[in-house]
Amino acid sequence: MQTLIEVYEHDKERILNELMTFLRFPSVSSEEKHRDDMLACSAWLEEYLQAIGMHVERWKSSQHPIVFASHLEAGPDKPTLLLYNHYDVQPVDPLDLWKTPPFEPTIREGNVYARGASDNKGQCFYAIQAIKMLLQRDGTLPINLKMVIDGGEEVGSSGLAEILASKKEQLRADYLAVLDVGILKPDIPAVTLGTRGLITLTLEVQGPSSDLHSGSHGGLVNNPLHALTTMLAMLHTPEGKVAIPGFYDDVADLSSQERQQLDFSFDTEAYRSEFGVLPYGGEKGVPPLERAWIYPTLEINGIMGGYGGSGFKTVIPAKATAKISCRLVPQQDPHRTELLVKKFLEANVPEGITATITSHPGIGKAMRTSPSSKIVQAASQAYEEVFGSPCHYILEGGSIPIVPELAQTSSSEAVLMGMTLPGDNAHAPNERFSLNRFKQGLAVITRIIDLLGTTSKF
Amino acid sequence: MQTLIEVYEHDKERILNELMTFLRFPSVSSEEKHRDDMLACSAWLEEYLQAIGMHVERWKSSQHPIVFASHLEAGPDKPTLLLYNHYDVQPVDPLDLWKTPPFEPTIREGNVYARGASDNKGQCFYAIQAIKMLLQRDGTLPINLKMVIDGGEEVGSSGLAEILASKKEQLRADYLAVLDVGILKPDIPAVTLGTRGLITLTLEVQGPSSDLHSGSHGGLVNNPLHALTTMLAMLHTPEGKVAIPGFYDDVADLSSQERQQLDFSFDTEAYRSEFGVLPYGGEKGVPPLERAWIYPTLEINGIMGGYGGSGFKTVIPAKATAKISCRLVPQQDPHRTELLVKKFLEANVPEGITATITSHPGIGKAMRTSPSSKIVQAASQAYEEVFGSPCHYILEGGSIPIVPELAQTSSSEAVLMGMTLPGDNAHAPNERFSLNRFKQGLAVITRIIDLLGTTSKF
Repeated sequence: MQTLIEVYEHDKERILNELMTFLRFPSVSSEEKHRDDMLACSAWLEEYLQAIGMHVERWKSSQHPIVFASHLEAGPDKPTLLLYNHYDVQPVDPLDLWKTPPFEPTIREGNVYARGASDNKGQCFYAIQAIKMLLQRDGTLPINLKMVIDGGEEVGSSGLAEILASKKEQLRADYLAVLDVGILKPDIPAVTLGTRGLITLTLEVQGPSSDLHSGSHGGLVNNPLHALTTMLAMLHTPEGKVAIPGFYDDVADLSSQERQQLDFSFDTEAYRSEFGVLPYGGEKGVPPLERAWIYPTLEINGIMGGYGGSGFKTVIPAKATAKISCRLVPQQDPHRTELLVKKFLEANVPEGITATITSHPGIGKAMRTSPSSKIVQAASQAYEEVFGSPCHYILEGGSIPIVPELAQTSSSEAVLMGMTLPGDNAHAPNERFSLNRFKQGLAVITRIIDLLGTTSKF
Repeated sequence: MQTLIEVYEHDKERILNELMTFLRFPSVSSEEKHRDDMLACSAWLEEYLQAIGMHVERWKSSQHPIVFASHLEAGPDKPTLLLYNHYDVQPVDPLDLWKTPPFEPTIREGNVYARGASDNKGQCFYAIQAIKMLLQRDGTLPINLKMVIDGGEEVGSSGLAEILASKKEQLRADYLAVLDVGILKPDIPAVTLGTRGLITLTLEVQGPSSDLHSGSHGGLVNNPLHALTTMLAMLHTPEGKVAIPGFYDDVADLSSQERQQLDFSFDTEAYRSEFGVLPYGGEKGVPPLERAWIYPTLEINGIMGGYGGSGFKTVIPAKATAKISCRLVPQQDPHRTELLVKKFLEANVPEGITATITSHPGIGKAMRTSPSSKIVQAASQAYEEVFGSPCHYILEGGSIPIVPELAQTSSSEAVLMGMTLPGDNAHAPNERFSLNRFKQGLAVITRIIDLLGTTSKF
C-alpha cells in the first residue's frame, strides 16, 4: 500500500485539480436547464476513463446518459466487481446559505466545498483514481472491473432502471460495491448492510380559481393553506408515528442475530453539537438509530403557497403544494405504500378544495445484505487495514432506489460503502468532502481490488 | 352632471394616458427595491395636483412620503371634506400568472389591467379628475377639500400613523370619505359602513442548524415542516372556528337595527362562477356575509419551507415560515388578539423546535359608521343619482387600518366608498378596473362635492 500512497502524494495536485474540474460541472439532474451540463459532465468522464485505459460506453436513456466503463483482462477465472457511483448532484438552493458558490469548488481546512463534493463526485473520483493507479502500477487489474456512473441517482435512477434489463449481460458481476454512503466517525470505518426504500409524492391543493384578498374573502372561501396544513398534520399521530392505516403492516421486527451484528450506538450529544438539536423526530420511546434504520418514515420535504417574501401580503392563495417522501424498510412494498398514502390524503380533502397527488420517478425498495458475504468481508478487511480499527456494520436511513434492482440484474452480492460523514452536508448548503478521507477511500478501493484478486472466482 | 360627463368624454384620451402614467410606477411599498419608485410616484402626484390648482405638501415619514393636497377657498362656513386614497400597491407575485406585465397597463374589453388599477390608483385618479373638472368649470370648489394620498396603505400605514398627531390641524375636517372599497354589482351601488381590523404576524420555526438529508435524518430529527403544519392545523376547530382560547371574547352580536340596515344577501352561484369554488370557508352553519363581515378570522397567507421546485429534493429544511393574519370586528382589541395568538402558538411549539413570532406594522381596529350620518346620506344620494338605483349599505371584510385613527384625528364622520367589484383582483394577478366605473366614480365624487356645497356647515 505504501507505494500507492506515495504515488498519490506525488500526484496530489494533479488529482485535486481534476477533481475540481469534475465538481465544476453543474450536473443537477432534476433541473431541465442543466441538461447540457449533464451531457458535458458525462462526456468528460467518458474521456477521462478512456484515457486511463478502460473501455467506455455512454448509455442513452430517456433521462441523462449513464457512463459504463469496464476492464475485463483478468479473465473468467477471476471475480468481477461492479462499482456504482453517480455524477449527478442535488439542486443547490437555498443558494444564499452557501459560503462559497456550489459550483466553484473551494478548499478550506482540509475539505473541498462544492455541490457533489461528497455526494457523489468525490467518492466517484477516488474510485477512478484507485483504478488508474493500479493500472499504472501493474498494467492490468487482478480482477474484472466494471463501473456504472449514474446520471440520475438524485432523481431516482429512472433512466438506468428503464435500460437495466437490456444491459443484463454487460452488468453481470459477482460483487456490487455501491460507493455512495459513509463511515461512522473519522476514525471508525463501517460497511452498510442495507438502505431504506423510497417513494416521493407531490400534493397540490387548489381552492379558488385565482389568488384572493384575505380581507374580503377571509371567512368566505376555504383557504388552500388551511386545507394543506390540516391534511399534512393528520399524517402523524401525536406520538410521532405515521397515522396512515396499514402503513406499518409489513414492517418486520429485526431478528436478534441482526440486532447483534448491527452497531446501534448513538451519541446524542455529538448529534446535538453537529446539527444543533436533539434527535426528537419519529416515534417517541424508540431508540434513535432504530427510528432512522429499521422503521419507515413519512417526511414533508417542502411546502410552498401564498406569500413568502419580506413584509406581508394579505392573500388567500389559489393553490399550495407539499412535497412528501416515505422511507421504507424490508418487506414494505413501495407501490402499496404509495397507494395507502394517496388514499389517506384523498379521503381527507376538505370541502371546496381539490387535491392532485403526483408520484415522482425513483420509487425503490429497501435492501439488506448479509455480513457473511464475500464482498462484505473484503470491504471490512480493507477498511480495518487502512484505518487500523475494527469495521462496524450499520444500516443507512437514506435510499439508493436503483441498488436492489442493479444487484438483481447483475446477479451480484451487494455492499454499500464509502467515506462520507453525516456532517458533509449532502443535499444541503456547504456540501464538503475531506481530502484525507478522499485519500483513505482511494486506499480502501485499491485494497479491495487486491483482496478480491487473490481469491479465485468461486 | 351632463356637462361634466361631456367634458370627460372629450378629455378621455388624455385622462386615460395620465392614468396609465400613474399605473406605470411600480410603487410597491413593501419592497425595499421600490423605494425610489415610491418617491418618483409621489413626486408625480405632487406636480399633478399643483398643476390642477391645489396646495400640495409631501409629508415625510419613516416610511414612504404621504401626499397631502388641499383647496380651502370655500371658507369656514362651508364644510370640509377629507378624501383618503393611496398610491402604493401590493407586490405582484406570482408574476407568471399575469397575462400582461403588472406595470405595463393594458386595456382589454373596457378594463385597464395593471397592479393598482383598482386598488387604489384608479380610484385615486377619478377623484383627482373630479376635482380638476370642478375647478376648471367653476374656478373654485363649493366646499373645502383636503386629500391624503397615502404611501403605505398596503403595509399598514405606519408612516402616516406616526405623523398623524402632528398633522391634526391640517387634517381637521367634517367628513372623511375613504375611496378604497366598492359597490355590490355593476348596477348596484353601495356605501360601506365598516371594515374589519387587522393584525399580521410571521411565524418562523427552526429545527436543525442546517438543512438535512431526509433519508439519514428522517425519524431522527423533528422536521420543522411537521412542527409548522401541526401548529397551524391547531389554529382552527374542525367546525372552522378559530381555536385560540379567548379569541371570540369581545365579539359583539349585531343589533337587530344594524342587521336590518345591512344588505347580507349573497349569491352563492355568482360566487362560484366568479371564483371557481363555493364559499366553504369559516364557521360551518353561519351565512356567508356574516362570516366575512361580522365575525373575525385567522388566515394563513403564506407558507414557505424546504424544496418547492420541479422534481423532488429529499430534504429536511432547517427552518420554515408562515404568514398569519387576523381580521377583527368592533370591540376586539388588536393588541390583545395578537397576544392571544402568540401565546397559543408559543404554548404549542413541539420538542426540538424553536419558534419566533414577529408582528408586522399596520395593526388596526375595526370601524363602523352610522347610516344616518350626513356624509353617508350625501354619498347615497350621489350613487343613486348616478346609477338610477337604490344605494345599499354593506360592510367590508377587509381592513384599512389607518381609517379609524384618521377619522379620530381629523374629527370627522367617516364613510367608505368606491367603485371596485370583487372580480377586480385586488392583491391578485391580473388586477383590473373598468373604464366605465372610472367614469361613474368621477361622477359620484363631483356630485358629493356639489351636494355638500349646498349645505352650510352645521
